[in-house]
Amino acid sequence: MRVLRALPLIVALVVMVSTPAFAGSAKSDIDAALKVFAASFNKGDAAGVAALYTPNGSLFPPGAKRVDGRKNIEAFWKGAIDGGLKNLALQAVSVEEMGDTAVELGQFSLDAPGEGGAMTKAMGKYIVIWKKAGGNWHLHYDIWNANPAK
Amino acid sequence: MRVLRALPLIVALVVMVSTPAFAGSAKSDIDAALKVFAASFNKGDAAGVAALYTPNGSLFPPGAKRVDGRKNIEAFWKGAIDGGLKNLALQAVSVEEMGDTAVELGQFSLDAPGEGGAMTKAMGKYIVIWKKAGGNWHLHYDIWNANPAK
Repeated sequence: MRVLRALPLIVALVVMVSTPAFAGSAKSDIDAALKVFAASFNKGDAAGVAALYTPNGSLFPPGAKRVDGRKNIEAFWKGAIDGGLKNLALQAVSVEEMGDTAVELGQFSLDAPGEGGAMTKAMGKYIVIWKKAGGNWHLHYDIWNANPAK
Repeated sequence: MRVLRALPLIVALVVMVSTPAFAGSAKSDIDAALKVFAASFNKGDAAGVAALYTPNGSLFPPGAKRVDGRKNIEAFWKGAIDGGLKNLALQAVSVEEMGDTAVELGQFSLDAPGEGGAMTKAMGKYIVIWKKAGGNWHLHYDIWNANPAK
């Protein structure tokens, strides 16, 4: 009888441990991916950044054409790194999950070389459409623009 | 007997007529909403543009702060109209539907007053997150940026 009485509790514990919620919400998984993104960028590892995107992901950069596919995404971020962008920081403001898709609103800051070589802080906002595949979230569509200059 | 034999056909016809698919796909509904957006903008009707957004929708404009809520969205688009932007055209490149949410990739063109008053054509790309409510799709998050200048 004791075991039978404890059965609902045991079942509840097993269900809790085996639910995807235990593996991390989309928000916490995406927060972790953003940390890897910024760390890879800031050590000059464009391939590491590109690996966070889906193979057929796309960038929509300000003042530039749409960039399709992981190879081209790597080349784009290599260009940004070689151009002197530093200290990238990314922050998810909100994440909405719909099955294998998540919509993230975020904000970024970075240091960019300005006139005369001095670094200036730039800030902006972005929307990333994430796709989950093989248990991991990847950036699929990535669009951003700048905040007003101070 | 004749009526009974025809019953499955009648049921099938009633189901076909009453399914949402008959009311138009997300893509065709969004194409139609984009036409209303551009027509409203081009006749200077900022309230008509703002009415296409969800009440708690947001804009993420290049070089400006995030704009929250329909009232502020109307003020933003009124500013753009008063600033002389004309001949807005919007085109959905792709629409992915997930229940009451749709992700649209799009491109736009418009005429903007340049140096010396001459109008110049500007083109860009955008992502809009649409939400369906009351049978209609509304823009919920709207972010865009410019293509490279020619």
